[in-house]
Amino acid sequence: MKNYEDYKTHCSKIADVAYSISILNWDQEVMMPKKSVERRAQQIATLAGILHELNVDKDFGNLLNILSKSKLNDEESRNIKETLKEYNRNKKYTTRFVQLMSKTTSKSFTAWQEAKAKNDFSIFAPLLEELVDLKRQECELIGYKGHPYDAMLGLFEPNSNVSDLDELFTDVRNQLVPFVKEIAAAPQNKEDLFYQHFDQNKQLKFTEDLLIQMGYDFDAGRQDLSTHPFTTNFSATDVRVTTRVDANNLSEIMWSSIHEGGHALYEQGLKDKNYGLPSGAYLSLGIHESQSRLYENNVGRSLGYWKHNFPKLKNYFPEQLKDYNAEDYYQAMNIVKPSFIRTNADELTYHFHILIRYEIEKDLIAGNIEVKDLPKVWNAKYKEYLNIDVPNDGEGVLQDIHWSHGAFGYFSTYSIGSFYAAQFFNQAKKEIPELEKQIENGDLTPLLTFLRKNIHQHGKLFASEEICLNITGEKLNFKHFMDYAKNKYSKIYNLTPVTI
Amino acid sequence: MKNYEDYKTHCSKIADVAYSISILNWDQEVMMPKKSVERRAQQIATLAGILHELNVDKDFGNLLNILSKSKLNDEESRNIKETLKEYNRNKKYTTRFVQLMSKTTSKSFTAWQEAKAKNDFSIFAPLLEELVDLKRQECELIGYKGHPYDAMLGLFEPNSNVSDLDELFTDVRNQLVPFVKEIAAAPQNKEDLFYQHFDQNKQLKFTEDLLIQMGYDFDAGRQDLSTHPFTTNFSATDVRVTTRVDANNLSEIMWSSIHEGGHALYEQGLKDKNYGLPSGAYLSLGIHESQSRLYENNVGRSLGYWKHNFPKLKNYFPEQLKDYNAEDYYQAMNIVKPSFIRTNADELTYHFHILIRYEIEKDLIAGNIEVKDLPKVWNAKYKEYLNIDVPNDGEGVLQDIHWSHGAFGYFSTYSIGSFYAAQFFNQAKKEIPELEKQIENGDLTPLLTFLRKNIHQHGKLFASEEICLNITGEKLNFKHFMDYAKNKYSKIYNLTPVTI
Repeated sequence: MKNYEDYKTHCSKIADVAYSISILNWDQEVMMPKKSVERRAQQIATLAGILHELNVDKDFGNLLNILSKSKLNDEESRNIKETLKEYNRNKKYTTRFVQLMSKTTSKSFTAWQEAKAKNDFSIFAPLLEELVDLKRQECELIGYKGHPYDAMLGLFEPNSNVSDLDELFTDVRNQLVPFVKEIAAAPQNKEDLFYQHFDQNKQLKFTEDLLIQMGYDFDAGRQDLSTHPFTTNFSATDVRVTTRVDANNLSEIMWSSIHEGGHALYEQGLKDKNYGLPSGAYLSLGIHESQSRLYENNVGRSLGYWKHNFPKLKNYFPEQLKDYNAEDYYQAMNIVKPSFIRTNADELTYHFHILIRYEIEKDLIAGNIEVKDLPKVWNAKYKEYLNIDVPNDGEGVLQDIHWSHGAFGYFSTYSIGSFYAAQFFNQAKKEIPELEKQIENGDLTPLLTFLRKNIHQHGKLFASEEICLNITGEKLNFKHFMDYAKNKYSKIYNLTPVTI
Repeated sequence: MKNYEDYKTHCSKIADVAYSISILNWDQEVMMPKKSVERRAQQIATLAGILHELNVDKDFGNLLNILSKSKLNDEESRNIKETLKEYNRNKKYTTRFVQLMSKTTSKSFTAWQEAKAKNDFSIFAPLLEELVDLKRQECELIGYKGHPYDAMLGLFEPNSNVSDLDELFTDVRNQLVPFVKEIAAAPQNKEDLFYQHFDQNKQLKFTEDLLIQMGYDFDAGRQDLSTHPFTTNFSATDVRVTTRVDANNLSEIMWSSIHEGGHALYEQGLKDKNYGLPSGAYLSLGIHESQSRLYENNVGRSLGYWKHNFPKLKNYFPEQLKDYNAEDYYQAMNIVKPSFIRTNADELTYHFHILIRYEIEKDLIAGNIEVKDLPKVWNAKYKEYLNIDVPNDGEGVLQDIHWSHGAFGYFSTYSIGSFYAAQFFNQAKKEIPELEKQIENGDLTPLLTFLRKNIHQHGKLFASEEICLNITGEKLNFKHFMDYAKNKYSKIYNLTPVTI
């Protein structure tokens, strides 16, 4: 390996193996027959081992160090800098550690599934202990400046750290918690319309229409069903979403499809010619989540969007929806109400779920709480922030898949993403004065063009903070989300008007 | 790597990568969006390169050579012998050659698709020339004792060679060709019943019933749609079949599903504990094809099978089938008639298609004919053996996918498999006197038990010739197929009774 071309070739090879793992994972979630669980885990672990060896290849490291001191153009320099950063982090892991982690997550995922089905945390606890122990080791191995949890946070959102997030979540606590209390005191809207029988194939077909309207390219992707909706990609030319459908609850599928569609638009908007390079990869999970949240909430839960789409939905279900109009639908989809399950939460209380996980993970990684304490701590925090009593661990501490996958440090990106989304959408409205009118007309192209131009096409060429500054002229500011929330929900709940 | 355990570990790693490629291939055929063609080809090529490096690993070779001289039990010795044979063959390939072959087949597959769609052989010809040139090089590289084509044949059916196949196909020419002429002179049966409208989902559902009845385990597999039906597996716990369905032709799906089901039963019957070892892998393509052909023809095209299943089919399509009974269905499905397309051929003229491809490939590899001559040679042989005039290259020389994949030497295994099938089925009837009655009752378990016991579970522990000898007491004998054919079709066509 001697030059930038060799660097690109090796990156492409790394991407080929990494995406192959993603294909095996997608297949596992969406297609695989149940008897094949163990063999598939083994196949993925083998590819993960091969991937690690490619990631820490000595010649590759030498090349990166040489290129980092060579004369390259801006984009090339940026790529080398990012790859070298990753390379140096990967070098900290031994193959043995990678394999141990892979095995432990496989085992703990299986234990979690059983524990959740049986509502029995004790089945999951021993594996989770092993995993937390490994994660604590990983923090030391990666290294951190402030809090050990910073090491985990940085895996998903570079430069993210406890000090900044503490500040952000203090805002959430101080501003969002009281506002939700205000809403809770107001009369509640009705959501009966969701709970009727809706043919599943028609629901699926309707969400395909929505995805096409968003600009999702079905020639470079597909939508399937899975238990946990997700987006995955194997290049910008193959970006797949999954959704879930409930014949007796129309709201189940809707925001899954729109949310995953937002993720998918980002991946489809990366430059395929930069395949395998930092410039061809998504920037951070926070920014990724900003795209899905923007479509899910700022677009998908707006009145204008449904003024256009509700009549289309009614064409699919004329009988069930005959007594309702777009405004009813809008009211029903924007009910704010504390609940147990994060993925079904409204867009305000959602962040209390994240706040709780953030606080718990931080203490768990630091060793301030132990695995055995989790259910107790969990339930106490749900009482504190949401004022609800968690009925059982299945709907409590066991509800999310993330920990069983070893994904500690991930949750906060959901909130960061939502706050970025509000800030970006605000800016889009400023730059495209007709934006809300366009959405009302079902024309989502100008919005996508804005996102493609400002975010998607750049990959990792800028940091999240830079992108935010470039687009909005300031860094991430919770105020934009809070203003959006107050403005929207004060109207929905007829609260005392707020000046914004 | 020091001992037999290390050998097993490396084999398992090789299998993990090989099966990952199969997963990427399955996905490509069944799920992948169209824009992703190039990236996927690249991802597969990368894994193929990694696989090759694992296959020819020096330490692995040393271990194999040591183990081949060590004291091991019979099964272990057999495994080492088989793996060493494969290792030595793989060593003959350079990584450069493997990559060149992978790239050339990718390009020629794309060219073939276009050529077939446009009925224009000249689009495919230049790529096919490159490929044939590589294949000729590959023969020299692998080496052969008799005819260069032996090198190709051995890739699919070990020990298969031109000398034996010339003899076998002489039997086909001398015995089957005149018998088919005799049939052609007799009055033809009707097949109108197939050509009505049949709901595609119901068709699919019915074939799922058939697969379950055969013993196919849907918890270790699945059935999907694809243009070219095929079976693939990623372990014995994940064996997938595909089929194709035509709403206006009921026969399209039927034998695809049963045929692929036969393949799948073989793979599901391999011992999962022998994953990655020769003892856990199918024996040869001839034996593989014997399983699919046995179910497709000896079972699936028998009257008894449909005495049980036709009423079930009628439940799905009461209106369309109200004027027909099992006997009508049996007559319709067993019409013998020369046709252009191999995959739609009846079970007798089918072998003329194979014979033609065998003769052409043999001459092509030996350099006796060149790519540019193929359409002329093809059409002349169809006139000679089937007495039909090929209307265009799409229905002629371009019809099959195999050459574009570089699969020369594959076709003859279809005939070998059919002849093995007749011989195995004959033996099964001897050993299970109630077999035909059981089939008529829809009880296919005893047949599967016979095949599992005698074939499936052994993997590569015996050679094809040994397996055949072990089961039937003699080597492959065309007489069994010919007797089966004469007995069955003399009745169907009311020909002069034959003594068998």
